[in-house]
Amino acid sequence: MPAELLEASGLWIAAAAARKCYGRHARSTPDKGLTPEDLSLLRRIILESDPAHDSVIEHIKYTWDVTTISRACSHQLVRHRIASYSQRSQRYVKEQGFEVVVPPSIQGNFQAVAVFNDVMRKISESYNFLIELGIPKQDARFVLPNACATTLIVTFNARSMRNFLKLRLDKRAQWEIRQLGWDMYNSLPENHKFLYEKETVS
Amino acid sequence: MPAELLEASGLWIAAAAARKCYGRHARSTPDKGLTPEDLSLLRRIILESDPAHDSVIEHIKYTWDVTTISRACSHQLVRHRIASYSQRSQRYVKEQGFEVVVPPSIQGNFQAVAVFNDVMRKISESYNFLIELGIPKQDARFVLPNACATTLIVTFNARSMRNFLKLRLDKRAQWEIRQLGWDMYNSLPENHKFLYEKETVS
Amino acid sequence: MPAELLEASGLWIAAAAARKCYGRHARSTPDKGLTPEDLSLLRRIILESDPAHDSVIEHIKYTWDVTTISRACSHQLVRHRIASYSQRSQRYVKEQGFEVVVPPSIQGNFQAVAVFNDVMRKISESYNFLIELGIPKQDARFVLPNACATTLIVTFNARSMRNFLKLRLDKRAQWEIRQLGWDMYNSLPENHKFLYEKETVS
Amino acid sequence: MPAELLEASGLWIAAAAARKCYGRHARSTPDKGLTPEDLSLLRRIILESDPAHDSVIEHIKYTWDVTTISRACSHQLVRHRIASYSQRSQRYVKEQGFEVVVPPSIQGNFQAVAVFNDVMRKISESYNFLIELGIPKQDARFVLPNACATTLIVTFNARSMRNFLKLRLDKRAQWEIRQLGWDMYNSLPENHKFLYEKETVS
Repeated sequence: MPAELLEASGLWIAAAAARKCYGRHARSTPDKGLTPEDLSLLRRIILESDPAHDSVIEHIKYTWDVTTISRACSHQLVRHRIASYSQRSQRYVKEQGFEVVVPPSIQGNFQAVAVFNDVMRKISESYNFLIELGIPKQDARFVLPNACATTLIVTFNARSMRNFLKLRLDKRAQWEIRQLGWDMYNSLPENHKFLYEKETVS
Repeated sequence: MPAELLEASGLWIAAAAARKCYGRHARSTPDKGLTPEDLSLLRRIILESDPAHDSVIEHIKYTWDVTTISRACSHQLVRHRIASYSQRSQRYVKEQGFEVVVPPSIQGNFQAVAVFNDVMRKISESYNFLIELGIPKQDARFVLPNACATTLIVTFNARSMRNFLKLRLDKRAQWEIRQLGWDMYNSLPENHKFLYEKETVS
Repeated sequence: MPAELLEASGLWIAAAAARKCYGRHARSTPDKGLTPEDLSLLRRIILESDPAHDSVIEHIKYTWDVTTISRACSHQLVRHRIASYSQRSQRYVKEQGFEVVVPPSIQGNFQAVAVFNDVMRKISESYNFLIELGIPKQDARFVLPNACATTLIVTFNARSMRNFLKLRLDKRAQWEIRQLGWDMYNSLPENHKFLYEKETVS
Repeated sequence: MPAELLEASGLWIAAAAARKCYGRHARSTPDKGLTPEDLSLLRRIILESDPAHDSVIEHIKYTWDVTTISRACSHQLVRHRIASYSQRSQRYVKEQGFEVVVPPSIQGNFQAVAVFNDVMRKISESYNFLIELGIPKQDARFVLPNACATTLIVTFNARSMRNFLKLRLDKRAQWEIRQLGWDMYNSLPENHKFLYEKETVS
């Protein structure tokens, strides 16, 4: 799975935030976990209200190590501005023997696979040749394809994550970022998943 | 202390993010803590570079329970937009017997103290009277003073925290938010504090 | 009207942005205004799609001079973080003879009016007295009420404005910020108003 | 020049915002332009104070039509999150006969030019062949190179623009985004340029 969850906040933080707004004392704590009262408070204000009072889940953050997605996909991902990214740089890191992501539509068409593999080989040779000619990495990378695999550390808060899943699990989203969205969702702590029940219905 | 730290990310997350950019494998992990190599990497890119490569510390977040600050102070605090807030609402929570924050300049002047206490008493009576007259809480609160104490759950990432401390520990900042800034800083995990060494020199 | 529009972008900018995404050449220009084709393009992607492709209206910005709203209202307003604010400072500006905002529920109750006026007089006297005693403005203001009028220069982009109106024209929003929302909306250029037709249905 | 300025706010807006904070009445207006008093007020708070009171220039926005930059460059550009972007989509727009950006280091080396042109021809043929084979545009684009030209509508506020120029006019920034930064700066209204005098010293 290309999204490994490195760190997640405790859900009790969101409950503490919700109680704060209404002047009630905290019930949930790191020790006790989430009380049933707090769980139903969160359900009510986040899932059953319109507009939702979902600012309380901004205090929840997730950090993932995302690997082996294409540069096409990372270019879409980083357009989500309420998030933090640390991406492997093609300016500083040499891409000899770069990995590629192959779209399923190409994988399923043997002629397309041949075209694809052929041009990838050519690109790889050209990149290496440019490096040998003394072209700096940051310029040699101009020949690298969108298919080239990249890797990032990514942080979202839970509210921004809801928006991300709403847009990227949508049927019109591209297959790769949809899959990434599902991977990110699947990696979440089980007790957080109800926060995304609207975004993950199929 | 009015700022209790509820949750902090592991510092190893920032090191993982820094290594990611340069294509190096992670050394620090939750088990091993921060290796000396990673510590010096972080020092170099965050504290010794200009411009700093400080986006890697956005993956670090802190959540505090802030109590007993004035509404004057909270109005300044929430102007920091790269942060999340859940504040006790004066629209929904009754403020009978509200607590107040008294500025030191008033505390140190017995005449001013008398004026201050006198008007606070009057405001409290008026608020209670308006509530008795059936005025909704959200309108009765129009008589409440800036001195009125409030409480919030606050989340900053470490990069935004650096900016907050730079502005609010400054000598020209108001005493109350300066004190809050120091309280937030003091509550941090010891091994995070070097990130703020530029903002906390006196 | 407390919201005077100081500056608004041309709507043709949003149309240019929409056409850009789909690789079409611009039709609308500052000279020609918005063409019917561009108008229906904007309607389709912003109002008739779900999820809406409303990032294109982020290029549209509005700046208002907002006057005579209460500090209670401004504290709500500045919680909208995708916006810019320049507010009159009670730290630097003396509030002798401050104006107040009186909630309608108080205006409509003669007993409440008496209580309100009485405490406002007392607050004003106390503030002036503290200033005379040499208390700094930034500390004397601790006695000032939420009712105290303030003024701000406010900038929103059109996408953030949609979110603001959705939340603040809602029936559960407080009367003062609802009224402000309507004032801001009413001040918009006529040809921009269709962007907000979902948020302004009653 | 690849950055055409489509719209810019009046500088008087920043002056109005600055005066607002200090409770002074506006001097500058759209008719009168910027008064000398307002100009020196802006210089003082933005350029001569530390920390700068530069939030007042967030009310100033600029929108550009950026053309013929590489996808490598656009991937860097969109990492600036306090900004708005509408980019030509490779998912929806066919890239037959795509334009390319050639790095100067390659242009200046005749062997490198030959390698570069050769692989670009190969990529273009492969892309067209994949399209003919019925591969969707959004997947065929996986073979397209970083060199592929793109175009965007871009909006920055003036404060975010200062940060962008500080980072991207720096000597360590890549040549293409440096050049873009200079083009964006050069396209500004002449009377705005003093805002960036610290970022544009060489």
